[in-house]
Amino acid sequence: MAPTVEGGDAALLPEFPRGPLDAYRARASFSWKELALFTEGEDMLRFKKTIFSALENDPLFARSPGADLSLDKYRELNFLRCKRIFEYDFLSVEDMFKSPLKVPALIQCLGMYDSSLAAKYLLHTLVFGSAVYSSGSERHLTYIQKIFSMEIFGCFALTELSHGSNTKAIRTTAHYDPATKEFIIHSPDFEAAKFWVGNMGKTATHAVVFAKLHVPGDQCHGLHPFIVQIRDPKTLLPMPGVMVGDMGKKLGQNGLDNGFAMFHKVRVPRQSLLNRMGDVTPEGTYVSPFKDVRQRFGVSLGGLSSGRVSILSLAVVNLKLAIAIALRFSATRCQFGPTQEEEIAVLEYPMQQCRLLPYLAAAYALDHFSKSLFLDLVELQRGRASGDRSARQAELGREIHALASAGKPLASWTAQQGIQECREACGGHGYLAMNRLGVLRDDNDPNCTYEGDNNVLLQQTSNYLLGLLAHRVQDGACFRSPLKSVDFLDAYPSILDQKFEVSSVADCLDSAVALAAYKWLVCYLLRETYQKLNQEKRSGSSDFEARNNCQVSHGRPLALAFLELTVVQRFHEHVHQPCVPPSLRAVLGRLSALYALWSLSRHAALLYRAERRRSCPGRRDRAS
Amino acid sequence: MAPTVEGGDAALLPEFPRGPLDAYRARASFSWKELALFTEGEDMLRFKKTIFSALENDPLFARSPGADLSLDKYRELNFLRCKRIFEYDFLSVEDMFKSPLKVPALIQCLGMYDSSLAAKYLLHTLVFGSAVYSSGSERHLTYIQKIFSMEIFGCFALTELSHGSNTKAIRTTAHYDPATKEFIIHSPDFEAAKFWVGNMGKTATHAVVFAKLHVPGDQCHGLHPFIVQIRDPKTLLPMPGVMVGDMGKKLGQNGLDNGFAMFHKVRVPRQSLLNRMGDVTPEGTYVSPFKDVRQRFGVSLGGLSSGRVSILSLAVVNLKLAIAIALRFSATRCQFGPTQEEEIAVLEYPMQQCRLLPYLAAAYALDHFSKSLFLDLVELQRGRASGDRSARQAELGREIHALASAGKPLASWTAQQGIQECREACGGHGYLAMNRLGVLRDDNDPNCTYEGDNNVLLQQTSNYLLGLLAHRVQDGACFRSPLKSVDFLDAYPSILDQKFEVSSVADCLDSAVALAAYKWLVCYLLRETYQKLNQEKRSGSSDFEARNNCQVSHGRPLALAFLELTVVQRFHEHVHQPCVPPSLRAVLGRLSALYALWSLSRHAALLYRAERRRSCPGRRDRAS
Repeated sequence: MAPTVEGGDAALLPEFPRGPLDAYRARASFSWKELALFTEGEDMLRFKKTIFSALENDPLFARSPGADLSLDKYRELNFLRCKRIFEYDFLSVEDMFKSPLKVPALIQCLGMYDSSLAAKYLLHTLVFGSAVYSSGSERHLTYIQKIFSMEIFGCFALTELSHGSNTKAIRTTAHYDPATKEFIIHSPDFEAAKFWVGNMGKTATHAVVFAKLHVPGDQCHGLHPFIVQIRDPKTLLPMPGVMVGDMGKKLGQNGLDNGFAMFHKVRVPRQSLLNRMGDVTPEGTYVSPFKDVRQRFGVSLGGLSSGRVSILSLAVVNLKLAIAIALRFSATRCQFGPTQEEEIAVLEYPMQQCRLLPYLAAAYALDHFSKSLFLDLVELQRGRASGDRSARQAELGREIHALASAGKPLASWTAQQGIQECREACGGHGYLAMNRLGVLRDDNDPNCTYEGDNNVLLQQTSNYLLGLLAHRVQDGACFRSPLKSVDFLDAYPSILDQKFEVSSVADCLDSAVALAAYKWLVCYLLRETYQKLNQEKRSGSSDFEARNNCQVSHGRPLALAFLELTVVQRFHEHVHQPCVPPSLRAVLGRLSALYALWSLSRHAALLYRAERRRSCPGRRDRAS
Repeated sequence: MAPTVEGGDAALLPEFPRGPLDAYRARASFSWKELALFTEGEDMLRFKKTIFSALENDPLFARSPGADLSLDKYRELNFLRCKRIFEYDFLSVEDMFKSPLKVPALIQCLGMYDSSLAAKYLLHTLVFGSAVYSSGSERHLTYIQKIFSMEIFGCFALTELSHGSNTKAIRTTAHYDPATKEFIIHSPDFEAAKFWVGNMGKTATHAVVFAKLHVPGDQCHGLHPFIVQIRDPKTLLPMPGVMVGDMGKKLGQNGLDNGFAMFHKVRVPRQSLLNRMGDVTPEGTYVSPFKDVRQRFGVSLGGLSSGRVSILSLAVVNLKLAIAIALRFSATRCQFGPTQEEEIAVLEYPMQQCRLLPYLAAAYALDHFSKSLFLDLVELQRGRASGDRSARQAELGREIHALASAGKPLASWTAQQGIQECREACGGHGYLAMNRLGVLRDDNDPNCTYEGDNNVLLQQTSNYLLGLLAHRVQDGACFRSPLKSVDFLDAYPSILDQKFEVSSVADCLDSAVALAAYKWLVCYLLRETYQKLNQEKRSGSSDFEARNNCQVSHGRPLALAFLELTVVQRFHEHVHQPCVPPSLRAVLGRLSALYALWSLSRHAALLYRAERRRSCPGRRDRAS
């Protein structure tokens, strides 16, 4: 990722137009062009420029920020724009394999333009398309070509009105009828209606529908994906037996048509079953390469990690946009000053700096994390594609699941809080729709909810860590993971004996210091959570109760601190590589230290309490 | 406020319709009717019922939540509804004097229906109307009657495009011309355009315009309010020389038409000056009962405290609505459970309880605070109206200013965070517009900004406390204030010597415990802030710099902790009155303890650090 062109070329990185920000820009201690080249690389900058130039020059993408667009009009426009993106064909399959980071980069560029467009495109290609590709078999390849030509338009229908997080409780059924060699897709009642499905409201012709598969004799083989035509592609009228509609206005992302669907004994051919993890013979016998239901279920939902990684990167986009808006405003807006006559830019106030600059640092650190996690995911997917069934491949899947399950919460919450802070930091002007902070907040909001509610997801990460510790305690196993994110935990007893030995503020301005504190904190939280969990169980709680009783006070902070540590670690290593241009080292080091210290400071009470317990081991807090 | 009717009557408090919440309602340890009577009193319940019944039965107030209403249509509807509220004449002037709490109750009822309606009504009556009444003189009484009949419709134009918080930098001018006995109102450039003025965008016919008053010889007497006609009441066309328009879409409150205006040498009669604090004789001589410009300025902005108290109560309304929606959803939404078959309500999860219940407690505590502060404000205004110029009256003004300046931030932020938590706690369903959490969030948002940015306002409160401490240190004065909110500080040296002596969790379930900790915390923060400020000044900082450098780390937490303490104190006293029905004591005591402990817990790091410093007085944190 080292810059390949000294200083960049003028066409790729033109000067900013002159304006009120010039004075601040002139004071920069580094070259922004060099930073852009280091952060993105020249090839990626060219790729993004191609996309932005196309959108800028195409009247279909013209818009008036803050305009009063009706819901229907907005949804229609967004569909037309999505179609146009396919026509532009920005990314060839070869390019995708050569530079996999261009996939999230494309989605991020669309997200910078409009979250609804990114979501619509992503849902059709990477969610619907990937589900067909990865859960289907050769007989489904015909769909793939139609997906890319937009002959069919797709959606991914898992969630139901009454069940989202608890996917095992999903109740749509698919009964196989050997007489006609068809599956009968059916919604038993309105609570089993598919719900919230993006693209389903107005535009999808096909859906990947998750339903419980039954073969004759009423044996249930659990949730399986089926490709079901829900609308006529010519008229967009619903297919017989399908009741489908739009869910109406949402807080944001209103260009996206989220929908619901109920199926009344809809018959689909046997071949509609996406049969990679299990199939039904024409006679009605269930066959599967996987031995047990849980393993099958895991495979069928394996695609969710990629959804979470995409969401993580879209949350980072929202944060980037918001912080750029707020910092530029703060550098030009003057209010009060040392004398009645002289006013100063609000960015000069320590209060404004404390409110905004940590989010600038967070945008850099999380952006890097999001890219690096995407590359890890590519490694995992390549292993899957090549049929790798090694223990390492399985471990990699679990590790990425744990990182994505806490990464999505951390990024979406950081963006949520950051955008809110930016909105408030811009005062009244931040409340005007045309200044976009409201749209960013509203569009970012579902990132906290979909593909798993943030608080529910964090349990996946704390459970992963607790499982590793149990394995170590009970079987003497080492902490080892393919991406090495847990390896440091192997030394947890000695880490917990360490003391914080920094004597000046200046010393803290190296992210290595915060990193050491984070390692201590994660070891501490892991041990405490493990003890608390066992104590709950000893006092008679079921596993379910015990985990619930530990999550608020222990599991949640453990998962978040572990992920913050991982983000800090990766960014710290990134900015301390030998290839970092010398002129950028200072500013990148400061960003890294700022993000690390700011994140760590939110655990200050925990650190103080832990120190207190250590200095008096027999003494707990009086009120505990 | 004790209940006046045992158990209430059926018409006033009818049973809830039967439904899925019955099971939870049956488990309540208290009678909700008794709680409603205790919290509101029968007379107030009747008053609110009258308002809600009128709105429910009037087709003009019918609506479809989540509907896709155009901006123009919404603004028009909101104006018609505002007019209808005047026609209903819910509150007579006599009633207002007899039961002043009915004023905020009316605004709160309108806010429960729609924030835009509450804002529109409030801006016309309590902001525009009060400004004319309190800043004008007998010659302006003719306007008052027209305000209540809505013959004229008003707005309050103080903020300009480039200056909001820094009111002294406002630049609209009013030059007196003795030849025609007129003032010439003029906007020197677009940065001096009046901006963000609620009601100005489409509907106001008159504005109270703040402008710098100049008399011949170009002597400037500072900011004064003028009543200026900006539109023809019949045609709504702008008056000559006035350029007025709507600011367009906002993040929320889109029923309210915020506007801008520029004045091009607009001539208004001499009598347009609202002359309570200063007047100009026909010949052009400036006369004022107040000696200096700062004192005059203080009087002309005195009305802002009442604005802040109104905002506080509207923020509480938003929080109440959100928490009711989220708790009801959580009690009916089931997800996961101890076994595959049995699902439990999400409200049963400790995570959901920890997310939501503190905001329920906050709603009760802040609601009580908002009412009690309003009554304090009434006392202040009655003193002003009766011409009280005593030292106590002045002190009361300063104390209420300090309480309102931190009360608005605390309430608006608590509502902001609470609504966001409610939105997320309702998962995808919370993201659907018709479930209202988005509207509440968007409508609450400007509460953090208008009538003073929250962070800027908090300085008013910390400065008030620092001023009192300086007075004590330098002159040996006592901490004494009319409402006694600072009196405890008089014992700060001995409070700081106290130790936290509670030995069990059970003991903490009395808000007196948190209250004692809060007193210690506020004393500690006050002393630290004072020392830090003096240290900054000794090291050469100007007063301006010194305050800025102290605000983030010291002044801000001081102001917030002081206000939280005040809220906790008042609610604690309220729920421990002898008149509290015995059957409500337990639940009210728990709400009080929960709010107090939850608020206090956010200062945990500070408490630990302070204890650490105390146990080793010579030792500071290593990194400080």
